[in-house]
Amino acid sequence: MGAAILTDLLTEIVIPVAAVVGIGFALMQWLLVSRVKLSPERQGPLAGSKNKNGCSDYLIEEEEGLTDHNVVVKCAEIQSAIYEGATSFLFTEYQYVGIFMVAFAILVFLFLGSVEGFSTKSQPCTYSKDKYCKPALANAVFSTVSFLLGAITSLVSGFLGMKIATYANARTTLEARWGVGKAFITAFRSGAVMGFLLAANGLLVLYIAINLFKLYYGDDWEGLFEAITGYGLGGSSMALFGRVGGGIYTKAADVGADLVGKVERNIPEDDPRNPAVIADNVGDNVGDIAGMGSDLFGSYAESSCAALVVASISSFGINHDLTAMCYPLLISSMGIIVCLITTLFATDFFEIKAVKEIEPALKKQLIISTFLMTVGIAIISWIALPSSFTIFNFGTQKQVTNWQLFFCVGVGLWAGLIIGFVTEYYTSNAYSPVQDVADSCRTGAATNVIFGLALGYKSVIIPIFAIAVSIFVSFSLAAMYGIAVAALGMLSTIATGLAIDAYGPISDNAGGIAEMAGMSHRIRERTDALDAAGNTTAAIGKGFAIGSAALVSLALFGAFVSRAALSTVDVLTPKVFIGLIVGAMLPYWFSAMTMKSVGSAALKMVEEVRRQFNTIPGLMEGTAKPDYATCVKISTDASIREMIPPGALVMLTPLIVGTFFGVETLSGVLAGALVSGVQVAISASNTGGAWDNAKKYIEAGASEHARTLGPKGSDAHKAAVIGDTIGDPLKDTSGPSLNILIKLMAVESLVFAPFFAAHGGILFRIF
Amino acid sequence: MGAAILTDLLTEIVIPVAAVVGIGFALMQWLLVSRVKLSPERQGPLAGSKNKNGCSDYLIEEEEGLTDHNVVVKCAEIQSAIYEGATSFLFTEYQYVGIFMVAFAILVFLFLGSVEGFSTKSQPCTYSKDKYCKPALANAVFSTVSFLLGAITSLVSGFLGMKIATYANARTTLEARWGVGKAFITAFRSGAVMGFLLAANGLLVLYIAINLFKLYYGDDWEGLFEAITGYGLGGSSMALFGRVGGGIYTKAADVGADLVGKVERNIPEDDPRNPAVIADNVGDNVGDIAGMGSDLFGSYAESSCAALVVASISSFGINHDLTAMCYPLLISSMGIIVCLITTLFATDFFEIKAVKEIEPALKKQLIISTFLMTVGIAIISWIALPSSFTIFNFGTQKQVTNWQLFFCVGVGLWAGLIIGFVTEYYTSNAYSPVQDVADSCRTGAATNVIFGLALGYKSVIIPIFAIAVSIFVSFSLAAMYGIAVAALGMLSTIATGLAIDAYGPISDNAGGIAEMAGMSHRIRERTDALDAAGNTTAAIGKGFAIGSAALVSLALFGAFVSRAALSTVDVLTPKVFIGLIVGAMLPYWFSAMTMKSVGSAALKMVEEVRRQFNTIPGLMEGTAKPDYATCVKISTDASIREMIPPGALVMLTPLIVGTFFGVETLSGVLAGALVSGVQVAISASNTGGAWDNAKKYIEAGASEHARTLGPKGSDAHKAAVIGDTIGDPLKDTSGPSLNILIKLMAVESLVFAPFFAAHGGILFRIF
Repeated sequence: MGAAILTDLLTEIVIPVAAVVGIGFALMQWLLVSRVKLSPERQGPLAGSKNKNGCSDYLIEEEEGLTDHNVVVKCAEIQSAIYEGATSFLFTEYQYVGIFMVAFAILVFLFLGSVEGFSTKSQPCTYSKDKYCKPALANAVFSTVSFLLGAITSLVSGFLGMKIATYANARTTLEARWGVGKAFITAFRSGAVMGFLLAANGLLVLYIAINLFKLYYGDDWEGLFEAITGYGLGGSSMALFGRVGGGIYTKAADVGADLVGKVERNIPEDDPRNPAVIADNVGDNVGDIAGMGSDLFGSYAESSCAALVVASISSFGINHDLTAMCYPLLISSMGIIVCLITTLFATDFFEIKAVKEIEPALKKQLIISTFLMTVGIAIISWIALPSSFTIFNFGTQKQVTNWQLFFCVGVGLWAGLIIGFVTEYYTSNAYSPVQDVADSCRTGAATNVIFGLALGYKSVIIPIFAIAVSIFVSFSLAAMYGIAVAALGMLSTIATGLAIDAYGPISDNAGGIAEMAGMSHRIRERTDALDAAGNTTAAIGKGFAIGSAALVSLALFGAFVSRAALSTVDVLTPKVFIGLIVGAMLPYWFSAMTMKSVGSAALKMVEEVRRQFNTIPGLMEGTAKPDYATCVKISTDASIREMIPPGALVMLTPLIVGTFFGVETLSGVLAGALVSGVQVAISASNTGGAWDNAKKYIEAGASEHARTLGPKGSDAHKAAVIGDTIGDPLKDTSGPSLNILIKLMAVESLVFAPFFAAHGGILFRIF
Repeated sequence: MGAAILTDLLTEIVIPVAAVVGIGFALMQWLLVSRVKLSPERQGPLAGSKNKNGCSDYLIEEEEGLTDHNVVVKCAEIQSAIYEGATSFLFTEYQYVGIFMVAFAILVFLFLGSVEGFSTKSQPCTYSKDKYCKPALANAVFSTVSFLLGAITSLVSGFLGMKIATYANARTTLEARWGVGKAFITAFRSGAVMGFLLAANGLLVLYIAINLFKLYYGDDWEGLFEAITGYGLGGSSMALFGRVGGGIYTKAADVGADLVGKVERNIPEDDPRNPAVIADNVGDNVGDIAGMGSDLFGSYAESSCAALVVASISSFGINHDLTAMCYPLLISSMGIIVCLITTLFATDFFEIKAVKEIEPALKKQLIISTFLMTVGIAIISWIALPSSFTIFNFGTQKQVTNWQLFFCVGVGLWAGLIIGFVTEYYTSNAYSPVQDVADSCRTGAATNVIFGLALGYKSVIIPIFAIAVSIFVSFSLAAMYGIAVAALGMLSTIATGLAIDAYGPISDNAGGIAEMAGMSHRIRERTDALDAAGNTTAAIGKGFAIGSAALVSLALFGAFVSRAALSTVDVLTPKVFIGLIVGAMLPYWFSAMTMKSVGSAALKMVEEVRRQFNTIPGLMEGTAKPDYATCVKISTDASIREMIPPGALVMLTPLIVGTFFGVETLSGVLAGALVSGVQVAISASNTGGAWDNAKKYIEAGASEHARTLGPKGSDAHKAAVIGDTIGDPLKDTSGPSLNILIKLMAVESLVFAPFFAAHGGILFRIF
């Protein structure tokens, strides 16, 4: 039981310093992006350090459209239209979500307060029965506060992400005039702004909250960290609405725009004549950026909370070993530093000179950050942990050593990398799976869809084995704590993950702006190349999100089971089994809702776009402007209205099951939703990503094989467009929302566990 | 513990008598079908008793094409071509499957024989430790024998089904000349032949096997019924190959024929100019008929075995109460009698006079059989069971009364009806879900696919609740035995279920023959109307198959856990959890394999069909005949080759997991595959069924709404055809094979449980 090398005081300093460094780095990146001026005076490329990334020596692409000042003005106009659309949507969304937030906060308070009948008396601790802990009412108050904190941090994260993305997209377009390398750096830097702000902000708020709560809780760490779990619940519940609402918004606009524009009217994607084009671009920012930001912040908050709550009832908490207790936060701090170094590899140490270097550069980010982080984890495990300690394991304490914990975090980290690479293999058009799907377009849309679905199903295999292995290793070594830190390991490189993830929609938007501003074909080609790599990184990001969600949910599930005082979750009892099978059904119910929502909203969009083409004279000829605002309104209204039923399904299920059927059935539901949801989510994301890139493969025509399928407008290409459209709701609405479903139900169960343990299972008590 | 009213002697008589009555009834129906002559002499409608179903008074449709004797000759020719294709495929399949059967039989013998090192000494019983039971070697021998018995019965069932269907299809076409009512009765009677032959045959063989085995086992019922479970394994493993091989065959041909014929060449379905048309019709018989026959026989055999094996270690077995022990067989006997009466309602008591009466008539079959069977179960429970008895429940004995067991069977029976109705609601074009899907074709194939997938996901909800409720009730009342008899309850009306299920492909074939024989448009319309109802009944049949599979697997799973001497299957242990998540992944892996197989085989078929159209002069004009045989060969080769990997996945998984990872992980795998597979299976079947009927809805143009979408060849119709093609592998290959996956893995685990319990988990023992 050797003491840790890192002192408590140093721990208290290191964590906020790392967070502040992360925020500072983000601001520095922003500054660099902002040097690309959205006004006609600007003369040369500025993003990136001049001497190393100057275009004169290295860039093989020609410089294009630099003289046309109108283009800059137009880009600025379009960017501001997108920004306004996105801001107005997010504010509308936040109004509704705000009402929900307040209502749910009251619910949290009432449910948790009622556990001991709102008594203000101290009570025996849940785990250390011989000690006295703070009253249940305090737990209710602080859980409510941390719920609100998590919710607000999540909203701010999403909003900041959107702001950065809309700030960066036109700048990326303009930089694309100097070549693909410049554009890449601008888009990537902007992604990094978001990644670092989110990671650092999440860490800082959590750190401050713990320290403030400690003023009241003092030595009652059990109560303190139980209350802190509200932070995860707040973060995840906002993420749910962000993902679902944003996902419906973006795909209703995208599908609607494509169906009339590309399929019926045969005009290119992002053509300014298409009335839904602004809504489509707004969608990328509110769905893929704000939604994803909230989502990954939620995962991060939850895995930290899960680790903390288990640690608080392990020897770390019992012995009040602050440094060891803060191990999860130290891992995240190290993550920020590692990602910072990793980012420099993309922006400063190397540079992109050709299209084919983009994907390897992004892939290198993952590899470098994983290698560096492995060392970082080893260091943290060595200096922050005692050489041996005990971890709570369903009623008993399990002996664990510091190097075992290193393995737990490491296995999660590396499982993430494997999932990332498998996802890349199945969704990048550089490999045979997507090429096979593209090839199947020869025989039409039907075979394209059959092959695409089969690809998605197949892509589940290796990630599941990776998740299973990391669960087995971390579970065996350090029980639930092992799984929580494995999840943290996977998320430790979140800043880099978010950077390469956000890069995709920014490039997508940049392409849209180029098209709308009437810039040349070559610039569009450059942004398309960025975007194709972005589709793959988006799929990788979703892979990470799902993989970490699986681990996080399991850790939260374990914490819930401990808190609910269950000793086993036996599949072969009727209460658990019905939970299991109904839980496994929930992802389908949820997907049915979200896909149908996208479908109906898209139908409305199609009708509006058709109406405008039919009734506005001169629209097809480009002499009249379409009415963009109506399309933005259709998407906004649809997404706000349609996000409520799936949101209610996820938020109410644990409450209803826990209250009426009790904790055994709820355990079954959580396990069922987890093991089934993870499969649906991975296959949906990858199928969608593969279809999108199969289409891009045909369009780009970069190989002999691709050229036999193209060009744009060929029968094979039309079939590919159909696949792409089907994939939109799968990869951007249903799929990514599912990982929130499984996490959120688990964290909600954990927060409400004291209530369910005391008063749950009404139905079985009556009968 | 009042004794049963039915004496043992009477039980021994009643069961075989019921089976013989069933076989007799089937032969009588065959006789009636055979009175439709496939030679030009025939003058009037003969199927059905003349006085009641004579066309003169009742049929509102006109008689058509009665004078053209050429038509009859042509029909006979086509039928014989289909029959030959199907026979040749099945014989080829059986050769491969036969090799597998022998190899696997050896494996069963070796694994089970090695449990006690092939010793011939008697050993202490597994459950009654104080008694002595037959040696493990005897168990190995008799398990192998019952495996072979089950396998052969399954093959015979499939073959007989195919023979009857190919015997009936042209006869149905010819009867369609007299009107839709005549055709319906012929198709339905033929379905009944298959239904009754299978149900009665399965019961008879099982009954005989038990009685023969008893000659050796004597009072050792524990060993006797453990050995009998091999019967379920044999039945199900053949069903797997039947479903997968047949499914790939039929859909490769169907998709291939449609892609070139309907989409590219714009010729109608089943046009004789299409080279793949015979292969397509052969496919219906080997996939939907032979495959489904084997499948449902497997379910029936397994649920009987699961019930028997649990009963043998309950008070029935311990007290050697033969009548109570035979309760599952008595339920099946009663089922045959009830279905016999039910059939008369469709063929003799009422008659079909118009198209719109077809679906209600089939629905009435389900309702009537369920009501009658409820009474039947009550009678059997009353006369065959003691008023109170004990049931084995994971190491303890649970007190159960006869009326509680009645509830268990009843809840399964009624859950089946609910699943049937929900399936009908989601797949029949009389209701809004399919109409919405049809409506979404307005905006193209992409929205059609999105809406169809959403429909399939949504259709899972109520069936899962129905299954959950029946599991909860039967599990709570009578533990694993309750679940096994609930499955039997759902399958008790199997004869009726199979009759209405087989009716679909027969009608489909009848339509194909009408088209190929160049019969008039009106006759084709009549067979299309039969077929549309057939699509729905096929989906209902699949709903039953999946629902019963879920219950059967759970019962087998419970029996396995008991046999493997596990007391709990705790989700929160690493060994079980990794099993659970990997198990939940298996249905995706399996679906990826089967869908890709269909896709690749279809691509080959497309190339061949295109080649023939391009190289055979006069083919499109109808002056030259296509080369049907090559297409038949492509389908045969593809399905034989492609059925091996998915078959291996299913058959090897339990062996590998059990041997290397042990019984805990295997339990997790079984539970995971069960709860995940059932969702994938239901959604795939219903999505496919809905797309098929959405297309038929547009084609039929029966309502104002439908006419706005049509006619054939419109853009909406083309979008619907794409959906239909995508649905083919989902509903006829992947979906229905999945229920075999979950059942088969469970029964295989049960059969090999003695080995796994003794020698399993090698990997964990080494490390």
